[in-house]
Amino acid sequence: MQINSQFKTVALVGRSNTPGIAEPLTALASCIAKRGFDVVFEAETAQDIGATGYTALRPAEIGARADVAVVLGGDGTMLGIGRQLAPYRTPLIGINIGRLGFITDIPLADMQEVVPQMLCGSFEREERTLLEARITRDGDPIYHAIAFNDVVVNRSGFSGMAELRVHVDGRFMYNQRSDGLIVATPTGSTAYALSSSGPILHPQLQGIVLVPIAPHALSNRPIVLPDSCKVSIQIVAGRDVNVNFDMQSFTALQLNDTIEVRRSRHTVPILHPVGYSYYATLRQKLHWNEHPSLEDNSLY
Amino acid sequence: MQINSQFKTVALVGRSNTPGIAEPLTALASCIAKRGFDVVFEAETAQDIGATGYTALRPAEIGARADVAVVLGGDGTMLGIGRQLAPYRTPLIGINIGRLGFITDIPLADMQEVVPQMLCGSFEREERTLLEARITRDGDPIYHAIAFNDVVVNRSGFSGMAELRVHVDGRFMYNQRSDGLIVATPTGSTAYALSSSGPILHPQLQGIVLVPIAPHALSNRPIVLPDSCKVSIQIVAGRDVNVNFDMQSFTALQLNDTIEVRRSRHTVPILHPVGYSYYATLRQKLHWNEHPSLEDNSLY
Amino acid sequence: MQINSQFKTVALVGRSNTPGIAEPLTALASCIAKRGFDVVFEAETAQDIGATGYTALRPAEIGARADVAVVLGGDGTMLGIGRQLAPYRTPLIGINIGRLGFITDIPLADMQEVVPQMLCGSFEREERTLLEARITRDGDPIYHAIAFNDVVVNRSGFSGMAELRVHVDGRFMYNQRSDGLIVATPTGSTAYALSSSGPILHPQLQGIVLVPIAPHALSNRPIVLPDSCKVSIQIVAGRDVNVNFDMQSFTALQLNDTIEVRRSRHTVPILHPVGYSYYATLRQKLHWNEHPSLEDNSLY
Amino acid sequence: MQINSQFKTVALVGRSNTPGIAEPLTALASCIAKRGFDVVFEAETAQDIGATGYTALRPAEIGARADVAVVLGGDGTMLGIGRQLAPYRTPLIGINIGRLGFITDIPLADMQEVVPQMLCGSFEREERTLLEARITRDGDPIYHAIAFNDVVVNRSGFSGMAELRVHVDGRFMYNQRSDGLIVATPTGSTAYALSSSGPILHPQLQGIVLVPIAPHALSNRPIVLPDSCKVSIQIVAGRDVNVNFDMQSFTALQLNDTIEVRRSRHTVPILHPVGYSYYATLRQKLHWNEHPSLEDNSLY
Repeated sequence: MQINSQFKTVALVGRSNTPGIAEPLTALASCIAKRGFDVVFEAETAQDIGATGYTALRPAEIGARADVAVVLGGDGTMLGIGRQLAPYRTPLIGINIGRLGFITDIPLADMQEVVPQMLCGSFEREERTLLEARITRDGDPIYHAIAFNDVVVNRSGFSGMAELRVHVDGRFMYNQRSDGLIVATPTGSTAYALSSSGPILHPQLQGIVLVPIAPHALSNRPIVLPDSCKVSIQIVAGRDVNVNFDMQSFTALQLNDTIEVRRSRHTVPILHPVGYSYYATLRQKLHWNEHPSLEDNSLY
Repeated sequence: MQINSQFKTVALVGRSNTPGIAEPLTALASCIAKRGFDVVFEAETAQDIGATGYTALRPAEIGARADVAVVLGGDGTMLGIGRQLAPYRTPLIGINIGRLGFITDIPLADMQEVVPQMLCGSFEREERTLLEARITRDGDPIYHAIAFNDVVVNRSGFSGMAELRVHVDGRFMYNQRSDGLIVATPTGSTAYALSSSGPILHPQLQGIVLVPIAPHALSNRPIVLPDSCKVSIQIVAGRDVNVNFDMQSFTALQLNDTIEVRRSRHTVPILHPVGYSYYATLRQKLHWNEHPSLEDNSLY
Repeated sequence: MQINSQFKTVALVGRSNTPGIAEPLTALASCIAKRGFDVVFEAETAQDIGATGYTALRPAEIGARADVAVVLGGDGTMLGIGRQLAPYRTPLIGINIGRLGFITDIPLADMQEVVPQMLCGSFEREERTLLEARITRDGDPIYHAIAFNDVVVNRSGFSGMAELRVHVDGRFMYNQRSDGLIVATPTGSTAYALSSSGPILHPQLQGIVLVPIAPHALSNRPIVLPDSCKVSIQIVAGRDVNVNFDMQSFTALQLNDTIEVRRSRHTVPILHPVGYSYYATLRQKLHWNEHPSLEDNSLY
Repeated sequence: MQINSQFKTVALVGRSNTPGIAEPLTALASCIAKRGFDVVFEAETAQDIGATGYTALRPAEIGARADVAVVLGGDGTMLGIGRQLAPYRTPLIGINIGRLGFITDIPLADMQEVVPQMLCGSFEREERTLLEARITRDGDPIYHAIAFNDVVVNRSGFSGMAELRVHVDGRFMYNQRSDGLIVATPTGSTAYALSSSGPILHPQLQGIVLVPIAPHALSNRPIVLPDSCKVSIQIVAGRDVNVNFDMQSFTALQLNDTIEVRRSRHTVPILHPVGYSYYATLRQKLHWNEHPSLEDNSLY
């Protein structure tokens, strides 16, 4: 089969430790390979499912050699590989193996039909913002991480409130007593930030949101900043304060440590099927009722 | 006095029906005139306070002839004159005559010191976004308005829920049963939208926020969109639904009428004193405590 | 069939203007009559469906003569007949003809099995609180109403904020600037009050909740009071303020009018099938997920 | 001086580790002693401030021998001694040494005037509810504690969501994925629960409130239950889940451990000055504006 596509090499990535995932992954691999694409497997995935006959590559190698990565799993799987591939700008296609995800928007049942079409050029591309965070102690950087969803500074459950001193672009914003503070991308706005009463940010909004967790002052409301802002969070008080990057924890924070958060220069390209609607995903994930006017109105 | 300024003609605008406002207005006028600026008065203000010896101009004339407008009043006074001057890009300076406002950030007591410095070029300038709204009926436009804070579609208090069908950039977002829906600019995000649990939007964020009012579905959360989006709200059900633009009401809505909201091509330049901090305003207006760590900790 | 029941005369009440309701109502009537109960119809229902062969009674007559009323409709139908029968303490059984209601908890499909069992004595009984409200002007009562869900004071959509002065048991609570104030029973706590961020009150809680609507002060949070409290709400400012009782509107309010709200001395007995669980209703109505731990965890 | 009072022996309790507290404590002691009351000091307080000339008693001894305890500190000091004295029903008088507290409602400056009047019988008495919690593992009780404010089950900051299975009076309520769950008394409703969006419960409400912390399901709203309910919370999933009683932590929880919470049979009597208003405390603590109608309206 002759293909006319910007994509030649396609990497497959599966969620780890997922019983039953071998079958759809190998089915997808052969379906794609049949159409003339070079298929490679992410190394851990290959090992998990015992894939043979395909090249196995580590994420950095995928970044260097693959043109696109197809991910089978949930949103968490996408976050993980997305952070690793970000420096390479490898586009991602997300297939959900359970319930619809916010960024894994292709149902498993549709993948053999939809993925080949997308690989042949029928897709809608969007760029998702990442955050880059740096922890400094006494002025020296001690840790660095990137986050797709959010950077979360929070107290441990064993202690009282944290007090955080927040500056934005070098200007003092507030001292906040709370359980913690979430800095979320638009992608992360529908994750933990939403549970803490944050707003939804459209993926194309050039913004990040600061969402306080259980703030002492009731007027400490979520605030949306341009994503060009640099946010600095200093630990002023609180025992056992830690910081998470997409729920990966760094736990050795001390008083006066500062977490600096800014937009990463990398973005993650995500490919959606043609006709993709972010709002349709919101409606389905958040149980928004499309036809409330039919409720309660008649017997039939 | 020799001045070297981009501003020559300064318009003064006062809140209407405000006992006692004549004295500070005339004091400010003579303070500015003494420094060599041409001072004109907004016509209604001139009539209210019986100003003599100064030219009185209507807003459109101010837009055409003045280089800057100094407003004495509250945020509402700024909203009103700001909407009128927007097509002329006349910058505004806001002096609050009562409590600190979000956009009237110079205290009355400081004006004679601060305003002349600003007129001589010491200021920080920012552009604030406006909304433009159009009501259509059976496809025909029947009303047009601009809003500095917000466009609010809401049911009257005499009737049951409204049902609104919302599209963004031509894509269906949701059918919402609620008391109404607020579309707010960053400036409006700290007004009515905040009371309805909306987030704060930084003035420089290129975004607008949709805040449902008492939505039937608990997951109908505020959503922040890029301000390039076109929002269309159709009245699907509900009696006596009306729409406000900065709390100015248009009341003759019918079922199936559509309100289209987009960013105006005009923005309003606001001038702040050097050292102005949006966060300081938030802290003061929202009673954010700058030093909570001193609370409750000692007797002194 | 010999029945041994506290109930002899059973009234049937249907939602008005409901196409298709005649069939299940007459089926239920004959199913009950066959078991030896005296069946009567609420007069409007009888007329709506053209019921013949059964006595038709107005609500007050039902209160005087029937031992129990079986209601086919939605929660709104229950609220309406419940207010009217409250003085007579007639117990209600609620059958939902569409989606599950909070108080119409028997599905239409189950009614012919469940209702006869309940009429024979297999039920769980609970009492629901009502509110009684009185409007006074210059000290004189001008209106009186009862409410099953809530008493709502709110501004019209055409005007700015209302200002309400609230006393509880004669003690000043606050002056509130807002869109309005909801006083809700436990039954009403899952209706409009929930949309305005109020808490859920268990039906057996001896409490009422005050929920501000879009309050100007972010710290004006919902407050739950003992239901022995007398709440007095005075209109201090605002044009076109009105008050609703279970969404029935009284619109001629003037400045300084006072709405006094207290628990009614009447309660409404509601009968549930044996095994009824209020929490099961909450789970279903609010989409609480019973088994979230199964989410996202495996492919099957 | 002849006194005619139900109180003879008065215990003084001060906040520990509070520089400067010795002086007001000894001044109060001598002021009370002069009026003929027997003054005793709580043992730790006595040691902290080096009090001599007064009997020093441990809390249990105070419970047995004192008729009333006067507490200088903040709400936390009251919670601590209140839990210890609860079995003895010793009434408490609370003096705040910093900012007004919810239950320490007498300013330090007023204490020498107000406290003697109260000891002579001029006071308003109210009873505050306590919670009693028991942790069971494999059916066996392993820990027991009482709480004045709240029992809080929450995940540590180092781990993902907790999953909690909640029963009320033996009936299944929900499986909740969240950061945790707060069970609060009316007293605790204005503490941590309020920061997590819980409602305010009037102190005389016979209720407790369950407030989820950052719940995964947006419809998992706070729910107020009669305080006769028994709440059982089982740890279904989550690492490092712990439970706090008034912020005192028990950390060794394991999966399947159950925390049972019920109203304690003890209540804490609190005495307030005559004319005390709970609403006045709320207004002051929550910055409710008593006279919003004066805002922004005129220059003077």
